[in-house]
Amino acid sequence: MTTAQSEATNEAQIRALIDDRVKAVGAKNVNETMSCIAPDILSFDVVNPLQSVGSEASAKRADAWFSSFEGPIGFEIRDLTVTGGDDVAFSHSLNRYSGTQTGGVEIDMWVRSTACYRKIDGMWMITHEHQSVPFDGASGKASLDLTP
Amino acid sequence: MTTAQSEATNEAQIRALIDDRVKAVGAKNVNETMSCIAPDILSFDVVNPLQSVGSEASAKRADAWFSSFEGPIGFEIRDLTVTGGDDVAFSHSLNRYSGTQTGGVEIDMWVRSTACYRKIDGMWMITHEHQSVPFDGASGKASLDLTP
Repeated sequence: MTTAQSEATNEAQIRALIDDRVKAVGAKNVNETMSCIAPDILSFDVVNPLQSVGSEASAKRADAWFSSFEGPIGFEIRDLTVTGGDDVAFSHSLNRYSGTQTGGVEIDMWVRSTACYRKIDGMWMITHEHQSVPFDGASGKASLDLTP
Repeated sequence: MTTAQSEATNEAQIRALIDDRVKAVGAKNVNETMSCIAPDILSFDVVNPLQSVGSEASAKRADAWFSSFEGPIGFEIRDLTVTGGDDVAFSHSLNRYSGTQTGGVEIDMWVRSTACYRKIDGMWMITHEHQSVPFDGASGKASLDLTP
């Protein structure tokens, strides 16, 4: 049974990991962004494909995504909730990504984010991640302009 | 620390919960579908809005969705992975939903599904759920025809 004290410690560790990740994305640093990603991560991403497997695929995707921005990437996290057991944890939040993409297109969108963690050799690692936007049933379009 | 034995037990309990839920959705039974949903669940659903909070909202959504089918709902789960700590667990899978909607529209789509659980008073309950399809970056359309 997870005690209240160990739960608080686990949750603080996960929040620190998320803080580091926000900084790494803001700095467009692929290696630091990937430092908490388990080798066998299964990812459901905002855009196609349906799923991707493995940290190598995630690193390639992060690199391509970082390169698609002309300048810095704005990354704000809202409504973060962390639930931390002794070996298994999860978090969810609404993430705002903004900036200017190559070609001058401005993006500013809110993405739903769920991350699932295991403690491996004493370190929290993300073994599953799910990021998405919902779609509008009438138009079939992804909803890129919703705000919390 | 979660032992291998308790991890196996936790995972078997979660798999049984998922089996029951598949049957409840197939039977379009709202009450049984909701029996494992925590009162304060936070849901990221396939279609708008961005998020919804609480089991009452989830029950209304399930009722409306069940009613949108003329006949039975086909519900198949593939690539289910369950990770179960002592108090906290998560699962992910690809879910195929199919059937005939009112008006005669046939649907057959694969949805990415993540569920996050807490053991509350000895019972596993879903406190967070995230279901989505990705979208095509070029067209901005939700990808409803992807297959695993």
